[in-house]
Parts: sequence; structure tokens; C-alpha cells
Amino acid sequence: MSEGCAEKGSVTLKTPKGTRDYSREWLRLRCRVIDCVRECCLAHDAEELDTPCFELRDLLSNKYGEDQKLIYHLEDFDGELLSLRYDLTVPFARYLGANRMVGGMRRFQVGKVYRRDNPKMNRGRMREFFQCDFDIAGRNAGPMVADAEVLLVAVRVLDKLRLPSYVIKLNHRKVLQGVLMECGVEQRQIRTVCSSIDKLDKRDWSEVRSELVSQKDIPEAIADRIGQYVTTNRTLDALRADPSLQKSKQVSEGLVEIDALLSHLESFRVRERVVFDCALARGLDYYTGVIYEAVLTGVEEGSVGTVAAGGRYDGLVGKIAGGGLNVPCVGISFGIERIVTVLEERMRLFPALFRPVETEVYVASAQSGFLSQRLGLVRTLLDAGLSVGYSGKQRAKFLDQVQYCENNHIPFCLVIGQSEVEDGVVKLREVETRTESVIKRDCLVEEMKRLVADFHHRQAQQIEKNGFPLLTASRPQ
Amino acid sequence: MSEGCAEKGSVTLKTPKGTRDYSREWLRLRCRVIDCVRECCLAHDAEELDTPCFELRDLLSNKYGEDQKLIYHLEDFDGELLSLRYDLTVPFARYLGANRMVGGMRRFQVGKVYRRDNPKMNRGRMREFFQCDFDIAGRNAGPMVADAEVLLVAVRVLDKLRLPSYVIKLNHRKVLQGVLMECGVEQRQIRTVCSSIDKLDKRDWSEVRSELVSQKDIPEAIADRIGQYVTTNRTLDALRADPSLQKSKQVSEGLVEIDALLSHLESFRVRERVVFDCALARGLDYYTGVIYEAVLTGVEEGSVGTVAAGGRYDGLVGKIAGGGLNVPCVGISFGIERIVTVLEERMRLFPALFRPVETEVYVASAQSGFLSQRLGLVRTLLDAGLSVGYSGKQRAKFLDQVQYCENNHIPFCLVIGQSEVEDGVVKLREVETRTESVIKRDCLVEEMKRLVADFHHRQAQQIEKNGFPLLTASRPQ
Repeated sequence: MSEGCAEKGSVTLKTPKGTRDYSREWLRLRCRVIDCVRECCLAHDAEELDTPCFELRDLLSNKYGEDQKLIYHLEDFDGELLSLRYDLTVPFARYLGANRMVGGMRRFQVGKVYRRDNPKMNRGRMREFFQCDFDIAGRNAGPMVADAEVLLVAVRVLDKLRLPSYVIKLNHRKVLQGVLMECGVEQRQIRTVCSSIDKLDKRDWSEVRSELVSQKDIPEAIADRIGQYVTTNRTLDALRADPSLQKSKQVSEGLVEIDALLSHLESFRVRERVVFDCALARGLDYYTGVIYEAVLTGVEEGSVGTVAAGGRYDGLVGKIAGGGLNVPCVGISFGIERIVTVLEERMRLFPALFRPVETEVYVASAQSGFLSQRLGLVRTLLDAGLSVGYSGKQRAKFLDQVQYCENNHIPFCLVIGQSEVEDGVVKLREVETRTESVIKRDCLVEEMKRLVADFHHRQAQQIEKNGFPLLTASRPQ
Repeated sequence: MSEGCAEKGSVTLKTPKGTRDYSREWLRLRCRVIDCVRECCLAHDAEELDTPCFELRDLLSNKYGEDQKLIYHLEDFDGELLSLRYDLTVPFARYLGANRMVGGMRRFQVGKVYRRDNPKMNRGRMREFFQCDFDIAGRNAGPMVADAEVLLVAVRVLDKLRLPSYVIKLNHRKVLQGVLMECGVEQRQIRTVCSSIDKLDKRDWSEVRSELVSQKDIPEAIADRIGQYVTTNRTLDALRADPSLQKSKQVSEGLVEIDALLSHLESFRVRERVVFDCALARGLDYYTGVIYEAVLTGVEEGSVGTVAAGGRYDGLVGKIAGGGLNVPCVGISFGIERIVTVLEERMRLFPALFRPVETEVYVASAQSGFLSQRLGLVRTLLDAGLSVGYSGKQRAKFLDQVQYCENNHIPFCLVIGQSEVEDGVVKLREVETRTESVIKRDCLVEEMKRLVADFHHRQAQQIEKNGFPLLTASRPQ
């Protein structure tokens, strides 16, 4: 991976601030992660959607609260003001509105989004990053059933990726608002207080408290009451037992929905993955019901934490489309870069399993000439479904070619020269063991297919043993 | 597919000019096409690269000739001037330069590019579109071997996609320049004349001739000489036999390279796919050697023509990186939208094979209640690797659910109600034949796996019979 920071020659060769190039291992992993999410979503009766990377600027206005300032704008060209998308949710709501999809839709979307954040590369947060979203729009199910299914999708994706242990934190906007109002926070300050509380996964309560008091003019007594709910008394039982919350209509409405959700999660057999957490706030403006975050547990402070997050946003489509259109929605967004970061750290431990290229056979040159025979052999092996590298030089050093195979964990190397052509054979070198043998040209294709299949079988066993199902060759023979 | 043109409610709900939303069938096809290109590139010992969607504006300046004006710029925010990428080639050259990759690289890249063109939706040309590029950088092979391999990749991709008949048109920048100079075109006018000739796939010679004469100040006599080469005498034999070209150093250098290329194409067994065409020009500035385009034959005038194109660009990395860096490159770019457009037209004829969703089993509700049993069954079927839809309503009309299955070509529908729960069974409805039977709960999973496998087997036979390998279920049981 390069961050392309070198400045050389006639133009600056760096990538824009907060962006980077991705290569090889990273992309092979990313591709598998996206395939995994896509496969899970398709298995949940969902259809894919793709929207443009930029939208009309008006659409993106007043949707993201304090994050509004992070949106990239395009230069005005022909009077149409455009901005790069900030997430996949608002474009989805625009699609639902434009197509008057009152019947709803189960959709997933994979794409890059753009936020002019302060890049924190060590947390996997960049100005350009991938999201995979799964959302259920419309009122086609009993109360909280869709919400439960979204969490089932989250569990199935994260389990399939075999991420380290994680937990899904759950809260409800109404519960949080009710609690804050009971603490004495005024209605108009609820959003900004939520923004501060949302930082509790990265900062101590003392820091958040001082932000509330000094920057947001929350009286100290109120801040301390908030502190009780977002530090110690964060469980569902604590809220239920709290006498001062009994009379809050918002809290009790929220708790009814939480109870229904937990019951469906029992039916889906994912209840044990979810914990209620009154301190979960989610920064975005558009959430109206349950909110949740999948958080890795047992990882170091300051490293990748949240790998998926979402919630219910019932008002967004109506706000965008107007005309009283009512399409309630609930969804989740997977943070692809963060997931890849976690997986990559583990997979780097197994370079022979996590090969940088898919190449299975290398056609080497042992002496000058015979180029056309080599090219013909390359085509033959490709047609047999094998992945093939080769030397295209008229004259190449044999040891350099073997070194290339070793560096890239290419298992087999074939050699043709004068004597092989005369004898109607090809020399085979098994790269790891450095053993050599001779194969008759007539049975070369079948023999190589068999050897490559054996190789993948051995790899698959090692991979399974080490618990990395994602590494399984994408094209097993 | 929506073009999102409706203006409703509080904000305009359209997508920006020249862009559109993509959904369902289109995306399932696009995903398969991209997988196919990716698989072919990986089989050719290549590695993937991903670069940001925007680059420093300076990088994109003076690279695209007359198309420079089509580049989208971002608003200045913190002094870093940015533009959306126009292609994947210049970012690749930037990557090679930034990392001083004198050893070269075999890379492919998949991504969206942006051109503020006049949208011609009927030709599949939009302002935002996908490209898949395969390029070989560096001097690691004998003359023209890499060029030949790039064409082999093109043939293997297009054959694998089973596109209708196509041909790869081939020319050489030096040959074209030599011919134009022999016709009397001055050096400084060669580029702009090439831009006009490049339009010959869309326009008659008479139109191009009048553009040359009236807009580009080419004398009529010279235009007529050009006309001979780009209309009738376009073959390699015609050029070789042309006495006035014998003395052109450029033409003869180009023809030597073409001959070497054709010889390697023989070795790779793709020679018959390629025809020389002196009228092929390619608009972009950066090509220096062979240029080529894969063009569908036997398609209607004005419909999708070119599905892949590329060439050799030996000077681009040096121009970008400076410091005398010399990394010769050759590559090809596949036009994903155009390929999907062609495939989609054929696949629409087979809606039962080209299903809009992957869902295999639908868990229906026949009477009110039993929601938790249904949710539990959904989880069980998902865990068995099946793709599952369901009714999440407490009470849903059975016929509506069957209709949903029929509309979406979901083959199996399972029903649980009071009597089924009491008897420990589930009712199975085969959607197409409308036959119903009863399955014991104990053997339900195994039975459904078997039925779904049979279904996919029958589908695969139909698909093979109709010659659409891309339709094969991505997750065969």
C-alpha cells in the first residue's frame, strides 16, 4: 500500500489528502469482504441498487447535522450544483421518493462515499471510503420485524467473516431523548447533546462532560445527571427500575419497541449478540427509532472499534420527497475498510496462504528462444482454467524466474527448452520443495490440473485449520 | 432502471445530468461481467489496484487532448485543487511514477470514471461510467509480447462473456502518422486530424472530410488523399503495396512492430480475431504505438459498437513522473456499461432464467400468528445456505405472497399454520407448477437443499442450452 507522498519530477505524484491507493492483498481481501456482504444480502431476498457518486447539492443539505460541513462540492459548470455523496442512505431515500416506492424495497448498495474529515489513518477513517448498506424500506412486516432482520443480517455477515468477538450495542432514539429530557436537557439542545455523547466510544466521560458544559452551555447539574445514564446505569434493567423515567412517554414507547425487537431476535436466534446501551447516540440527524452499532470487543483502545452501524429513519423519505410520502426505513452500513483492516492484520501472519496473486503455474524460459512454444503453452494452460504467469523475454535468467515464483508463492514452474521440445516433454519444478520432474507433453494439461487441485486442497485444509474461510481460493479447481 | 427525472415535493428528486440509478437485473449482470474480467486478469498473473476517484488537478492537465474540457473539478476547499478522474490510465501512470516502479507491474483496475460529455444514453455513454482496465507496465518481455498478451486477455474476456461476434481492429500510431504525413498533413496538425478520423465509426467519410476541410483548414487535395487510406485502402496488404509509403520511416517502423505482434498472436492462437484497419485513430493523446478496439459486428448502425479499446503509451509515466523515468506501458479498457447493455438485451428474453432476485425459498403465512415460528424457520433455512424471503406480517394474504413469488421467479414457497405446527410438518408449494405437498419438519432442511439443488441444475441446463453462461447461479448448491 502506498500513500503516494513522494513529490517527484514535473507534477506532484501524491494522492489527495485523506485518500490513498490500495493494492494486491488489501484488494483481494476487500473483494472477498464485499462478496460476503453481497451474498448475505442476496440470501435475504434483497436487490442491489447503484446511484451516482454525486447528487444534486440540495438533496444533501440539512441531512447530516454537524457533519454537513464535510461534504465535497463540485465546481458549477452548467448551473447544476453537485456534491459528492456523504453516505448511501440519502441517495436511497431519493431513489425511493423519485420512484414513489410506497410498497417499499429490500435493497443493498456497495459504493464509495466522501467526507472531508480530518483523516485519521490509524483508525481506518479516510476521506474516501467504501460502505455496504442493507436497508428495508416500507411497512411490509409486523412492528420491529424488519429491525430484527437487519440485525440478523449484521450477525450473519460478521460471523461469516469470522471477525474477532463483537457485540451489537442497541439503543432507541426515543429512549435517549426521554432520558435526556428527564435529565433536564431542553428539546432544542437534544441533537447537539447526542453529538457529544456519540463521542463516548473514543473519549472519557470527563472529556465529554466538559464539552457539554463549556461548549454547549449545559448546566453542570444536568451534565452530571446525564453522566449517570451514560456511564453506570446503561442497562435496560437499570432504566426500567428508574422511578424518574416511569412517567416519560418517550422512554416507555421506546422500551415497548425494544421489547418487541428483542423478542424477534430470540426467534431469529441472535438475541445473545445484542446488548442495550443507553450511551449509544449515533451522530446523524435522520434516525428516529432503534439505533445500533456492531463493536469489536477485546481490541486495543484507539484501534478499529465499530465495524457496522445503523438504525431506523422513518421520516427521511417524506422529508426528501414531500407530498406526504411515508416510507419508513431501517438499515445498517458495514464499514468495509475497518473490516479489511482487522482481517488483514491476522492474515499477514500466513503469507503462503494469503498469496498476493492467484497465479498457479509459471512458464519459465531456461535458455534463449522457444518464445513461441512458451506462448502457446500459456494459452493451453489458460484454456484449461489455470492461472498462468510466464516469461515473455527471448532470454531470461532462470534463477530470476524461480525467485519470482518464490516471492509470489506461485506453486508450480514449467520449463521448456531445446531438450524438452525434442523429447516431447516439459520440466516441472515444484517451487516450495524445489523438486523437479518431467511430464510428457501429451498429459501435461491433465497432470497440471490435478497438481493444482491438490495444491488448493492442501491450502484449503491449512486455511480451515487457521480459521480464515475468506482465504479459500475464489476459483477452486 | 429509473432515470429519476420526476420533480416532486420539497427537493428535486432527479439524478445529475448524464447519470442514472441502476438496479436489480442490470447490477446482477454488471457484477458478473466485472467478476469475469477480474477472473481473467487474475488468471494472467495480474494484481489489482484501486486509486481515489479524484486526483490532484495538475495530474490530469494536458493528458486528454480535446477532451480536457470534459473533466469535472471540485471546489477549492483547503488549497488542494482536485478533479474527478477521467480514466484509470493516468492514475495508474501516477502510481507507477510515485512508487518508481521501473520493474513494471501487471495490474488491473475496476472503477467509475467521469466525463462531462453530452450524454448519449442510447449509446450507453454516460457522464459516470465503469471501466475495467488491464495494463502491463515495464520492459519485461520481448518486443510486442506484452501487446499480444493484452489482446489475448481481450479475446478471453469477450469469449467468456459470449458476446455476439466481434473483431479487434488494429492500427499503429506510427503507421497512421506516417500515412498522414505522406498525404501532406503537417506535423502540428496530426493530432487534430486523428481526432476527426476517430469519428469514422460514427460518421460517414463525407462528414469527416468536410470537418477536416472547413473546421481544420486541411486543403481539399490532402483530405482526398487521406480519404483513400481511411476508406478503401485500409488493409495491411494495401499499405505494404503502396509505393508512396515505401520511404516513410514511421510507416516501416510501425509495420515491423505490427508484424511481430501478429506473429505472437499466432502463438497465442488469437490471430484470426484481429484485423488491421488504417482508419482506426483513437482520440487520446498519450498513445505511442499499437492501438486497438474490439468492435461488435453485425449490430445495428448507431447501437453499441466498441466494447474494449486501448494501446501502447510509452511516454506517459515519464511525462508525469519526470526525472527520466522510463516505464513503457500497454493496456486495454473494457467498457462495462456497453457490454452489459448488449448482454441485457439478450437476457431479457429469458426472465425465468435471469431472475431479479436470488431468493430460492419463501416462507409464507397462511393465517394470522405463528410469526415467531416463521422467523425461526427463516434462520434455519439461511443457515442451510439457502436464500430466503418471508412474510414478516402477523397477518398476510396468502395469494399476495404467492403472487410475489411468481413475479420474482422464486421457485419454492413454504407455509406454516396451526395444523402444520400441530402435525410437525411444513406445507411446500412449488410455485411454477402450483403443486402442493407436505414435508416433515425433521427432514425439511435436507429436502429443501435437495429441491433447490435440483432447481439450479435444471436452470443450468436451460442456461447452457441458451448459451448464457453468465446466468449460472453464483451460489450453486
